[in-house]
Amino acid sequence: MKDKGISSAVTKRLPRYYRYLSDLKASGVERISSKELSERMKVTASQIRQDFSNFGGFGQQGYGYNVENLCTEIGKILGLDTKRKLVIIGAGHIGQALANYQGFSKRGFILSGIYDADESLVGSHVGEYSVKSVSSLKEDIKNDDIKIAVIAVPKHAAQDVANMVCEYGITGIWNFALVDLKAPESCVVENVHLVESLMNLAYNISVKES
Amino acid sequence: MKDKGISSAVTKRLPRYYRYLSDLKASGVERISSKELSERMKVTASQIRQDFSNFGGFGQQGYGYNVENLCTEIGKILGLDTKRKLVIIGAGHIGQALANYQGFSKRGFILSGIYDADESLVGSHVGEYSVKSVSSLKEDIKNDDIKIAVIAVPKHAAQDVANMVCEYGITGIWNFALVDLKAPESCVVENVHLVESLMNLAYNISVKES
Repeated sequence: MKDKGISSAVTKRLPRYYRYLSDLKASGVERISSKELSERMKVTASQIRQDFSNFGGFGQQGYGYNVENLCTEIGKILGLDTKRKLVIIGAGHIGQALANYQGFSKRGFILSGIYDADESLVGSHVGEYSVKSVSSLKEDIKNDDIKIAVIAVPKHAAQDVANMVCEYGITGIWNFALVDLKAPESCVVENVHLVESLMNLAYNISVKES
Repeated sequence: MKDKGISSAVTKRLPRYYRYLSDLKASGVERISSKELSERMKVTASQIRQDFSNFGGFGQQGYGYNVENLCTEIGKILGLDTKRKLVIIGAGHIGQALANYQGFSKRGFILSGIYDADESLVGSHVGEYSVKSVSSLKEDIKNDDIKIAVIAVPKHAAQDVANMVCEYGITGIWNFALVDLKAPESCVVENVHLVESLMNLAYNISVKES
């Protein structure tokens, strides 16, 4: 059972905690104090203690956190203990790059297929996948119990794709199209607006220059 | 001259304003009221008025905003009126996808080249670019007045690349490696941590499911 009362400011920090703890675990560290973790992550030790207390603590006074347990617990909170299947819609450059990325499966995400509306791309190879037609999405989403759709289509097509996959039972959209999508209550949208991130960078550079 | 006193919460919203205004301009809309804009953007009209007042207003009471002017002015604040050259370091899947992306030049970003440390990739084609060796970065950054480096290398190599390009005079890093980079005061870092975004999505799905 998830606690829905935790502020989104806290939950947004969890993936970063998870990343640091995974790296510590991978390098064989068994225990870490909030002070050490705070120095690595450049956040205050009191923020770390406060954040973790939202989820029941995980630590023992004067003894530090057990890295493996903490990593597992935060992974559970993030829902990473549940394997989730995803499809990529749009076999353009971004869709292809995501299909080739090896890091998803480590966090419990399983790429089930990559789809395109352009029939001339259907059957072409992207990494270990063969591009499928969007016309098979409905059946595949239902039969394979797919929950996440990655939208990597041009922005003018993105809302139609979103409507379609929500109707087919998708509950999460990872949106790379440069548009804000409308989605029903049953579906969560997470945006990656690359150009906006680059504009942020440009702004911060120009502030420094002035 | 930029006003450095504006909160980052406001400046972070500017790229999104810029996007909506660009789209309005492209569809031939000349004027828009804060009310109409607020309905499209799903933010309150008073937030819009307050945000814009930080930069001197742009609007006339009862007459709305001139879309083209507003777009130009926000573009200036974002530093988009200055053409900025960038290099991509890392010709893997993400680096290739970014090199093929057509949307940067519209916002004043000019891709100058794509580089890799793997000599077997040097000379291979990525879109209209031919991959260059990182050994020519130093000269190219200086000679071409390049200000932005896109880091799309594996995470274990990212800090070394960051150190190198900062030494060569880069003032902004757009970082796709899944690691937090240390950079000198002279250099701004903007992170795109894709896996963390996907974990956020997983969390929000699992909250809905519970």
